[in-house]
Amino acid sequence: MSTPLFEPRAVNFVDRVRDSFARQGAMQTLGASLGSVTPGAVDIEFPWAPGLTQQNGFLHAGMVATALDSACGYAGFTLMASDAAVLTIEFKINLLAPAKGELFRMEGRVLKPGRTITVCEGRAFAIEGSQEKLVATMGCTLMAVTGRDNIQG
Amino acid sequence: MSTPLFEPRAVNFVDRVRDSFARQGAMQTLGASLGSVTPGAVDIEFPWAPGLTQQNGFLHAGMVATALDSACGYAGFTLMASDAAVLTIEFKINLLAPAKGELFRMEGRVLKPGRTITVCEGRAFAIEGSQEKLVATMGCTLMAVTGRDNIQG
Amino acid sequence: MSTPLFEPRAVNFVDRVRDSFARQGAMQTLGASLGSVTPGAVDIEFPWAPGLTQQNGFLHAGMVATALDSACGYAGFTLMASDAAVLTIEFKINLLAPAKGELFRMEGRVLKPGRTITVCEGRAFAIEGSQEKLVATMGCTLMAVTGRDNIQG
Amino acid sequence: MSTPLFEPRAVNFVDRVRDSFARQGAMQTLGASLGSVTPGAVDIEFPWAPGLTQQNGFLHAGMVATALDSACGYAGFTLMASDAAVLTIEFKINLLAPAKGELFRMEGRVLKPGRTITVCEGRAFAIEGSQEKLVATMGCTLMAVTGRDNIQG
Repeated sequence: MSTPLFEPRAVNFVDRVRDSFARQGAMQTLGASLGSVTPGAVDIEFPWAPGLTQQNGFLHAGMVATALDSACGYAGFTLMASDAAVLTIEFKINLLAPAKGELFRMEGRVLKPGRTITVCEGRAFAIEGSQEKLVATMGCTLMAVTGRDNIQG
Repeated sequence: MSTPLFEPRAVNFVDRVRDSFARQGAMQTLGASLGSVTPGAVDIEFPWAPGLTQQNGFLHAGMVATALDSACGYAGFTLMASDAAVLTIEFKINLLAPAKGELFRMEGRVLKPGRTITVCEGRAFAIEGSQEKLVATMGCTLMAVTGRDNIQG
Repeated sequence: MSTPLFEPRAVNFVDRVRDSFARQGAMQTLGASLGSVTPGAVDIEFPWAPGLTQQNGFLHAGMVATALDSACGYAGFTLMASDAAVLTIEFKINLLAPAKGELFRMEGRVLKPGRTITVCEGRAFAIEGSQEKLVATMGCTLMAVTGRDNIQG
Repeated sequence: MSTPLFEPRAVNFVDRVRDSFARQGAMQTLGASLGSVTPGAVDIEFPWAPGLTQQNGFLHAGMVATALDSACGYAGFTLMASDAAVLTIEFKINLLAPAKGELFRMEGRVLKPGRTITVCEGRAFAIEGSQEKLVATMGCTLMAVTGRDNIQG
């Protein structure tokens, strides 16, 4: 996916993403690490692990969704104002092939940023040796929220 | 949600669900247990844990999706033939409220069973003390697959 | 679907729905009429017509979606403030069976109202003689917008 | 969107698409015409008309969905076997901006073809003068069906 050029509103958008990512217990459970973080585009990677599987040993669709949701959410977050937190309103995922691989890379990309509503797309790739395969796509709607005490970053 | 009465094709559908559920590493990571398993309807429960959270300590939307996907997938699986395995084709989740609670209950329900395609709905409830709150809904499409060596149950 | 009891914010919510519905050229093209309009719940009906079909003479999935989107949108609109207009952010539709019938009834129901974001569910029924069949379900996210000159009702 | 190269199974895939399109009453109601038809990619165009509008005179989201569903469905149909018909299982649409324009172009693209299940993506553009704007995206799942008497092409 090519990504249009977006202008971040918060100069420290990379730090904001890294800080929030570090607070997500789910990302630690996935063994996930942040890859590239640029305006409107965030990548997340993690290795296969037995605790992330469905009944045939492939990555559970929900774990694919977990990583894609974080990739999309943080892609949107890169463009939000410095007092805004990000919430996912909804997402849809299409599983194109069994998520079978040693390593997984998730790409979150902003399609349309907005003051309140941001729409993103995500793609999940399974990597095995030198092979990389598209295994899932996500469409995702985010909301920027401000002024709620218990919701930050 | 009320559930129409469905006729299971495999007499041992409960065992088939329990066996497959036990093989999902993701369910162990969630600390999830199977609740009621009846034709076309499966419940899954699990407690809050720090490894399942987003940045504000709520349940990560992807973890809600993981449990809902298993609940919906197994709801569909209860109605499939004894030589069929179940794969999720796609799902969509709407997050209605932050998934804040001590315990979470996921309801997967078959809306329309089919020889190849089965459509399910799921609802996620967050429980805090005596309060129970609907926090997410899922629409989910499953496929029954047979004759693939690496895909079972 | 049972519907929780909601409190409308605009006393003239029925008139607001009827006025807006009458301005939708698409509803006239469908030959659609408003049925019941109550807080959080709107029904729309229309007969089969050759101009609404896909290649086998069934109702085109997009025409099912058009009527469901209006039913869901107006269900949400019943609960919005008197200065708010309603926009659809996204919807997803599952086609459960070919939309084959003489008459179609669409039910739009609010699942979770909100100041900015409202989530609805819709169900489409095909009626043939005395038979009524569920043919599609929709999940739909709406936004209440105010203060935009070119967007009303 | 770039499109991978796909191999059609039916040599007369263009004729099959054109024949089926001509049988869709809904496409006539939209005033729609087929644009480019290549393996895995179909475009559809139509002008604004008062019978296609929502309450503010923009294109009704359902009419956007109708055209996108046909574009995606026929994109998938280009790759299906000569005895197969195509049915939409589900689609999701995100409305990125009001569909305001003189002319609309819909792009349907196959993301992942399959013997039974095909996944497509669609994009809707509104054209006003020399300006073209992305106003909606669709994710769509199709099923190839054979051997059903009342379902063709």
